[in-house]
Amino acid sequence: MNTAPISGMQELLPSDQAKFNQIKAQIADQFSLHGFHNIETPIIDRTEILLAKAGGDTEKQIYKVVKTAETADDADQALRFDHTVPLARYVAEHENELAFPFKVSQIGRNFRGERAQKGRFREFYQLDVDVIGRNQLPLAYDADAIATTYLALSAFIKTDICLRVSNRKILKGLLEELNLDKISDQIFSIIDHAEKVSDQTTQASLQELELNDTQIQTLTDFMQIRGETDSVLTKLKALEIENSTFKAGVSELAEVLQLLLKLCPNGQITGDMLIVRGLDYYTGTVFETFLPEYRQIGSVCSGGRYDNLASNYTDQKLPGVGGSIGLTRLFYVLRSNQLLPQDLAKTYVAIIPVSDKEVDYCLELAEELRQKQIIADTVFTDKKLGDKLKYAAKTATHAIIIGENEVKSEKPMIKDLNTGNINPLDEFIAASDQHLGNI
Amino acid sequence: MNTAPISGMQELLPSDQAKFNQIKAQIADQFSLHGFHNIETPIIDRTEILLAKAGGDTEKQIYKVVKTAETADDADQALRFDHTVPLARYVAEHENELAFPFKVSQIGRNFRGERAQKGRFREFYQLDVDVIGRNQLPLAYDADAIATTYLALSAFIKTDICLRVSNRKILKGLLEELNLDKISDQIFSIIDHAEKVSDQTTQASLQELELNDTQIQTLTDFMQIRGETDSVLTKLKALEIENSTFKAGVSELAEVLQLLLKLCPNGQITGDMLIVRGLDYYTGTVFETFLPEYRQIGSVCSGGRYDNLASNYTDQKLPGVGGSIGLTRLFYVLRSNQLLPQDLAKTYVAIIPVSDKEVDYCLELAEELRQKQIIADTVFTDKKLGDKLKYAAKTATHAIIIGENEVKSEKPMIKDLNTGNINPLDEFIAASDQHLGNI
Repeated sequence: MNTAPISGMQELLPSDQAKFNQIKAQIADQFSLHGFHNIETPIIDRTEILLAKAGGDTEKQIYKVVKTAETADDADQALRFDHTVPLARYVAEHENELAFPFKVSQIGRNFRGERAQKGRFREFYQLDVDVIGRNQLPLAYDADAIATTYLALSAFIKTDICLRVSNRKILKGLLEELNLDKISDQIFSIIDHAEKVSDQTTQASLQELELNDTQIQTLTDFMQIRGETDSVLTKLKALEIENSTFKAGVSELAEVLQLLLKLCPNGQITGDMLIVRGLDYYTGTVFETFLPEYRQIGSVCSGGRYDNLASNYTDQKLPGVGGSIGLTRLFYVLRSNQLLPQDLAKTYVAIIPVSDKEVDYCLELAEELRQKQIIADTVFTDKKLGDKLKYAAKTATHAIIIGENEVKSEKPMIKDLNTGNINPLDEFIAASDQHLGNI
Repeated sequence: MNTAPISGMQELLPSDQAKFNQIKAQIADQFSLHGFHNIETPIIDRTEILLAKAGGDTEKQIYKVVKTAETADDADQALRFDHTVPLARYVAEHENELAFPFKVSQIGRNFRGERAQKGRFREFYQLDVDVIGRNQLPLAYDADAIATTYLALSAFIKTDICLRVSNRKILKGLLEELNLDKISDQIFSIIDHAEKVSDQTTQASLQELELNDTQIQTLTDFMQIRGETDSVLTKLKALEIENSTFKAGVSELAEVLQLLLKLCPNGQITGDMLIVRGLDYYTGTVFETFLPEYRQIGSVCSGGRYDNLASNYTDQKLPGVGGSIGLTRLFYVLRSNQLLPQDLAKTYVAIIPVSDKEVDYCLELAEELRQKQIIADTVFTDKKLGDKLKYAAKTATHAIIIGENEVKSEKPMIKDLNTGNINPLDEFIAASDQHLGNI
């Protein structure tokens, strides 16, 4: 029988799983410290809810679930493909029990049945923050949500991280000014793909739309506007566009960028007109996050502002802003590029009784270590001492061997299995105490 | 559109979700401290793998997944219904990359499409520990796995917890001795259900099997054997059964109970012949865990020893032992019985600028608190101060109001929203530091 996981599913060995879990916990910790309340929605939801707004790829890639004999009366069901749609249902359902603005985080696996490809996953972790307002939501929350994802990434990515921000109202207003608003979907899509194709291809795509030279020149100039806040705002104003949507977009972008600079004082924050988020449902602020030294891996975190989260489920207007970290893919590319943090392994002590007579003492010792928050595993196997040590070398970071003498003296030694150094256990425990006190 | 979650799916408000997450983290922490390595298997797996050993209810309740156009070439798929079957596949697949005995924990949602019932869930968290050996596995690991789940429960359940242990070889050997081994499935099932029905019903069920009076009397006496280790072992020996399977079971039970008493010195550990785990695949040690004051909620954690984990997927003999906490149901019953821990709420500070002029100072203050691992949320809403305080009361445990004076003096005060007490922020931070140092 084939025991490999299905193609597109992540399955890690314990050592990699430990790193994955620790990164996930670091992100969750940042989300929490920034005041986002965690929730979990069911993985299985009504197809009607999940597909209310969807189209195109989503409908093709959604995993439908077959009802069982005992659930046959239920509505049609499928697996959630993102956190945003179930969040919309959640907020509509629990609106009267929530405080707005609702700062919410979600951490869990989502599902998309797309073609198998290296580095693409059908089952993948997304770690999202969103802020949902009732009727209105101050623009400062755009910066709050974006900064939180940026700082969460900074907690474990030690290479450069570049945050690229724009506002869809800017391009929307520009296209209105150029009388191109009827083909705005096509132009958003061309600009969204511009970095993945050559300049010639982008130019050819624009020419296919039968734009005139001024329109093409303006769009080409526009796409090159990127950089630090002041420079970007100066260049946008130099376009001398009078359209009110354009101006609102520029003003919003200025406010969000200025607040982001304060929230992420060490961040690489840029305005960038190539960021438009294609056919997504965003209506204002949009952002993507890249590792400049590993540009080929694409955006590792993205999101933006949506005017009305749950218009399909409630009459209440619920504007929101959010960002999402695709952790399964990010972990895959960090690992492929040797960018995983090296210092994540926790102290794991294997306690080895030489014979059955020392087991009781080992159990007491293990409990003492656990009380100090140190992982302790008593090795119960009947193997020879050498084999027990080999086993410890595979599973643990440290080993303690307990024979008759150690039981009598109550002065066991602990061996660091990495360096080979051997030290008195009481010194090791004192050093760990010290470390805990310094958190 | 119906925005309720599908029947049988857990969906919590943020305050309950925080408690659920904290309990989950406490269990995970105990699993880790006892040396269990965490892994995650895919939620979607091959139907052929999932149903290789299954029958009866499992086949009726499994959620099959419809392949999408882009995954049509894949094998038939379904959602995992427990952690044990995917673990068997995982160990068979990665056997050469694992160290045995493999101490492994799994924490995640499983899926069973059973009839909707109050307090029953179709999507539910299970938190499992297992120890898998290659060819053989010392009996001490039975006690290790059971004690770990028991101590994990003790970390957050403050009412009594009773661990009831037996060994299936005892009843198996007894039935051989009584020449009833051909109907052992029926008798295992009758004893498994004995606590859920009246004594008369149990007697009637036994009589339906056409047992003779001696057989019925022996089984009735047997079912009453429970209590502390010495008492149970004495009563079992008093049955004077010479069958070798029976004797092996008693000897194994004695060893496991004695080690459990050492591993859980404050535990309520009992031997109990009513614990047989019905038609499960266990072959030796079996256990269930009850809250004696809330007996009606049934077993909150159970498991046992299986001779061969992955016989359907590999020729390698892989004996194992494990236990599973059904957290979604447990959380539901703890909440219904007001047994959730009350002290779980983390400090959450809302920082409120009186006007836009104080926002920068608030951002710096928030960052300072986060560096101390305190949750800090700057309230950006345009509302009046009174409305901001109402919002803080709904989301936070503490509030800091920053006006002109506080920016000048740099001596803000912090209000405990529960007690109404107001204290200088620097004293509050010093107290939190103290607390961290005492972990």
